[in-house]
Amino acid sequence: MKIIELKETITASNDRDAQELREELLRSGTLLINLMASPGAGKTTLLDRTIRDIGSRYKIGIIEADIDSDVDARALSALGVSAVQAHTDGMCHMDAGMTRTALEELTYDDKDLIFLENVGNLICPAEFDTGAGRNVMILSVPEGDDKPLKYPLMFTKSDVLLITKTDAVSIFDFDFDKCEERVRKLNPDILIFRVCAKNGKGMDAWEEWLEEQAGSWGK
Amino acid sequence: MKIIELKETITASNDRDAQELREELLRSGTLLINLMASPGAGKTTLLDRTIRDIGSRYKIGIIEADIDSDVDARALSALGVSAVQAHTDGMCHMDAGMTRTALEELTYDDKDLIFLENVGNLICPAEFDTGAGRNVMILSVPEGDDKPLKYPLMFTKSDVLLITKTDAVSIFDFDFDKCEERVRKLNPDILIFRVCAKNGKGMDAWEEWLEEQAGSWGK
Repeated sequence: MKIIELKETITASNDRDAQELREELLRSGTLLINLMASPGAGKTTLLDRTIRDIGSRYKIGIIEADIDSDVDARALSALGVSAVQAHTDGMCHMDAGMTRTALEELTYDDKDLIFLENVGNLICPAEFDTGAGRNVMILSVPEGDDKPLKYPLMFTKSDVLLITKTDAVSIFDFDFDKCEERVRKLNPDILIFRVCAKNGKGMDAWEEWLEEQAGSWGK
Repeated sequence: MKIIELKETITASNDRDAQELREELLRSGTLLINLMASPGAGKTTLLDRTIRDIGSRYKIGIIEADIDSDVDARALSALGVSAVQAHTDGMCHMDAGMTRTALEELTYDDKDLIFLENVGNLICPAEFDTGAGRNVMILSVPEGDDKPLKYPLMFTKSDVLLITKTDAVSIFDFDFDKCEERVRKLNPDILIFRVCAKNGKGMDAWEEWLEEQAGSWGK
């Protein structure tokens, strides 16, 4: 077996725009959470549960980024939060400019907490700073504990990892300790929560962290 | 809830290179299968099972495309097939040029059947023709039956859809009929197989199709 390297440089020059946006959000006291994961990892289900649990204490906004459809934005706006559906027209990630457009549509300066549900993709969103205050990623149990080895950048760039669908561990061979060890090798400072958004297990620790962040952002 | 469109054009001009490569593969009688899916959908497990079942009748090659690591190529080369690990250095997909580089490293003209396990990503690989004779995609049950609505291009570009991890349907709410209806609306000609690579259920129909394709390619 041979290993060959296919070099190609990704150009990503939106860092300055992202930093400007982050400073504006800091001034308005709006915490933007960039939520990233593979397709079907359970981003919308996690947000649904989180909003039901702590939503009444905050002015919340949601940006649903998808290539197509508006099923997620419809589901979450039914919870009574402001939601905007951003269609990326084939683009595999959100960048700072796209995020700004969506934030302005939503009107962000009267919100405490905005969730950007990024496009379902474990690769490209990690390369583009959206201007978010915190980056949160989901890895679901059915995806497997080897994902940190294959998609290292996303784990490196995230402040929080939520390991979700923990109720599926009876069917899937998933070694939590091995997974977390692999993640911490990439990113020693990352916070890791094991949760099941369906039955609520472990959600309290994640929501406590979230409330701490929202409470101290821009204050 | 508002819907905003974020327009941006993807430049993809590798179609001519891909067509040339496909014609070369046709002349050498080598069927290249481009296997695409989300991270953790079970591409390697499917290939492992398929090679164990029908591998002895063909000269098989494997290209494992990953951003990092070589765990999959190691696993599959243990089955006695030629395997090459292609590192994309952060790139989220394989294009025709990258595929050619990997094929030449593998030496393709003495192979009957080559599997390209594309980077785990439900978006970008669908935009880049690799030169493969057939495009095959996996959607695993834990990802959910709404994926055709959100990632339409991949379903449109695939000749075959394998719905995998069917043994997980006891835990996940997945409506096979609704999913297949959504897929056929995008792509009426697509072949759909429901399989579980772990317990072997449904693998025979997929392997029969594969043997038919390999038998008639370039003949």
